[in-house]
Amino acid sequence: MTTATYTVEGMTCGHCVDAVAGELAKLTGVSDVSVDLDRGTVKVTSADLLDPGTVRAAVHEAGYELRP
Amino acid sequence: MTTATYTVEGMTCGHCVDAVAGELAKLTGVSDVSVDLDRGTVKVTSADLLDPGTVRAAVHEAGYELRP
Repeated sequence: MTTATYTVEGMTCGHCVDAVAGELAKLTGVSDVSVDLDRGTVKVTSADLLDPGTVRAAVHEAGYELRP
Repeated sequence: MTTATYTVEGMTCGHCVDAVAGELAKLTGVSDVSVDLDRGTVKVTSADLLDPGTVRAAVHEAGYELRP
């Protein structure tokens, strides 16, 4: 089990949190997603470390962007 | 046909716009809802002028508040 924290740009409200968490939760191996709206961070727990491109694509699909 | 413009507090993103517009569009007699996110205003077109309490309740149901 591994945990990684990402910074997501553009989240402003609970709907944004739901959108980002929902897309990340769909990824294979993800068991937990925790979003800190004030800090703009997302903590993802998964069986194996996720491919950064996969995480970026999921956040983009939700309508937001990972900070590089 | 009548048009009224309201100020809604707390809308920060497109999801907020969708939530508010969705609730207002459900009200009887409403034919058009237009939200200006930058200004925080909502323009509602309806057959008859809506009861202010009804508008306030719909916005509250969406999770936001009308400015008094």
